[in-house]
Amino acid sequence: MKACADVKPNERLQHLIDSIRPTDPLAEERAWERLDSLTKPPRSLGRLEEIAAALARIQGTDHPSVDRRAIILMAGDHGVVAEGVSPYPQSVTWQMVANFAAGGAAINQIASSVGADLLLYDLGVVGDTSVLAGVNQAKVVGGTANMRHGPALTRDQAVEALLAGAQAATEAADGGVRLLGTGEMGIGNTTAAAALTAAYTRTPVERVVGPGTGLDHAGVAHKMAVVGDALSRNVTHDSDALDVLAALGGAEIAGLAGVMLGGAARGACVLVDGFISGAAALAAVALCPPCRHYLLASHRSMEPGHTVQLDHLGMMPVLDLDLRLGEGTGAALAMALVDAACRMLSGMATFQEAGVSGSESA
Amino acid sequence: MKACADVKPNERLQHLIDSIRPTDPLAEERAWERLDSLTKPPRSLGRLEEIAAALARIQGTDHPSVDRRAIILMAGDHGVVAEGVSPYPQSVTWQMVANFAAGGAAINQIASSVGADLLLYDLGVVGDTSVLAGVNQAKVVGGTANMRHGPALTRDQAVEALLAGAQAATEAADGGVRLLGTGEMGIGNTTAAAALTAAYTRTPVERVVGPGTGLDHAGVAHKMAVVGDALSRNVTHDSDALDVLAALGGAEIAGLAGVMLGGAARGACVLVDGFISGAAALAAVALCPPCRHYLLASHRSMEPGHTVQLDHLGMMPVLDLDLRLGEGTGAALAMALVDAACRMLSGMATFQEAGVSGSESA
Repeated sequence: MKACADVKPNERLQHLIDSIRPTDPLAEERAWERLDSLTKPPRSLGRLEEIAAALARIQGTDHPSVDRRAIILMAGDHGVVAEGVSPYPQSVTWQMVANFAAGGAAINQIASSVGADLLLYDLGVVGDTSVLAGVNQAKVVGGTANMRHGPALTRDQAVEALLAGAQAATEAADGGVRLLGTGEMGIGNTTAAAALTAAYTRTPVERVVGPGTGLDHAGVAHKMAVVGDALSRNVTHDSDALDVLAALGGAEIAGLAGVMLGGAARGACVLVDGFISGAAALAAVALCPPCRHYLLASHRSMEPGHTVQLDHLGMMPVLDLDLRLGEGTGAALAMALVDAACRMLSGMATFQEAGVSGSESA
Repeated sequence: MKACADVKPNERLQHLIDSIRPTDPLAEERAWERLDSLTKPPRSLGRLEEIAAALARIQGTDHPSVDRRAIILMAGDHGVVAEGVSPYPQSVTWQMVANFAAGGAAINQIASSVGADLLLYDLGVVGDTSVLAGVNQAKVVGGTANMRHGPALTRDQAVEALLAGAQAATEAADGGVRLLGTGEMGIGNTTAAAALTAAYTRTPVERVVGPGTGLDHAGVAHKMAVVGDALSRNVTHDSDALDVLAALGGAEIAGLAGVMLGGAARGACVLVDGFISGAAALAAVALCPPCRHYLLASHRSMEPGHTVQLDHLGMMPVLDLDLRLGEGTGAALAMALVDAACRMLSGMATFQEAGVSGSESA
């Protein structure tokens, strides 16, 4: 029985990965032709044109649209908080999920301001969130194990979290959502994200560990030591992408990697929020490299390891606003620009349609 | 008769300038106290918190809102195009106004995507725009004179354009608009903007002249010579802020300076678009320094002189997307972020309201 139950989720994960198709370079080419025919000097909308072309490539059309959009926010707790790596107590994770459910957090206001639905998922919170209205239950663990002393998750738990994330994304996409944003909540998760970043990008711990929600200099040094121990204890040269994800956690990060895989499988664009979501992107792309072309980086986080992630993935963020909150706030803000980019490409008139004279040097 | 007609607009301009009140530092202070009490690590929303605080200061409340917003787009032609400073023919100004009126331009799509009204004004277009639906008629001249050989506008025309812009802004504000964005159209207006920037910031021509809509290296060198001649011909040590604005034009730039003054007089925040709007901001602040605190820079344009303007005004743009189109596209994009910032400050729960534990180190 156990072996059979073990095999089935692994097969489902492999099937998910195999179902992700490459994006469409011909649609991108048609989009650039159209962009250059629209009533503006060529390339005068800079990065907005690049975003529009990326959406064309993802959606396979030179008239992309992202009318329906959603933030998928996943929460989970981290055993490593026992090491004193966060200035906030673990109970804040549950309390903030309650705050999201009640509409009082930053992401509630920002998602609403850009017309995005906010979909909440409990992947691994300590404590019962089923008493909170609107929190989808997908708990694979009630807080991860402390990665300083062993794997944060088992491989089975990591697979379960990946599949739960993929299901969240596919359900949203099947409901018409074309643009997903990732968000997270989990006290201690900048520690997990730093460890994942060091492991996936093979970067020294010193370059990927930062202050998180507000550690001082000594706190950051201690966090570096904890991350270093977790890597020595759990990651070897033979570790595969799934081993790394399980060993360092957390459940919400694995869930968000699943959101990226599930979104890519359905042809949705996924806006990656900040440092925690970036760690999930490293995992998703390590598990399935073609997933990369469905991802856009929303903003450059203040957390130093975020730039390491972006460089590794070859991503250029849309916004640079010194954000370091998470929750999907950067992804939600960037949605306004992605929507504007799509409407520009799809809705503008060409020089010919508008009867506007072109450049005399052209 | 003439003297009397002359005096009255000047008096109206002086009255407008005198009516602009300083913004409210106590409201900003209360906003920062509130920001630090909201359910997020302090200052973790970076620039978004600064924007929210700026709006609080402008609106005199720690619960600002920008539910109603509008782009005011002003068009005008420039006699200096006779010098061959643009790759596009002058007729494109009228044609693009027709395109705005028909909904086919970039600003139509982008303003719509952020829920902003688009208000069109003819301040100085060559040709009749009254045949186009929705174009407000405020023409002070049918194209400016060629500034290489003399003043682009008379002082009276500049005052008339300033007052027309102020009236456009006050009408919008009286209709409930709390956030204005500036946009413009005018073939040749990067040349006028470069000349204004050199004059107001006392910066060498070489640092403020750029490729505009697409000049090559030789074209930029020629444009520098034209701007240099215009400055030698029209601007002396004794020129006041209004002399400079009149001498270098154009009507749409003076109109936008008026939008900034009128918006400030009504307590509205004005998002300054790119390089042309930045030249208008230099004029508005030179005419009335307290106007500065009602202005926010929306984006950093690709045009080199834009950074000179921002440094002179002490402004830090919200976006950096390599835009160089104008029309108010950068201002419209930034509106989404200003709206999100206001909703965040006004709508989030405090730690106390949400029952969330604070930082243990706090």
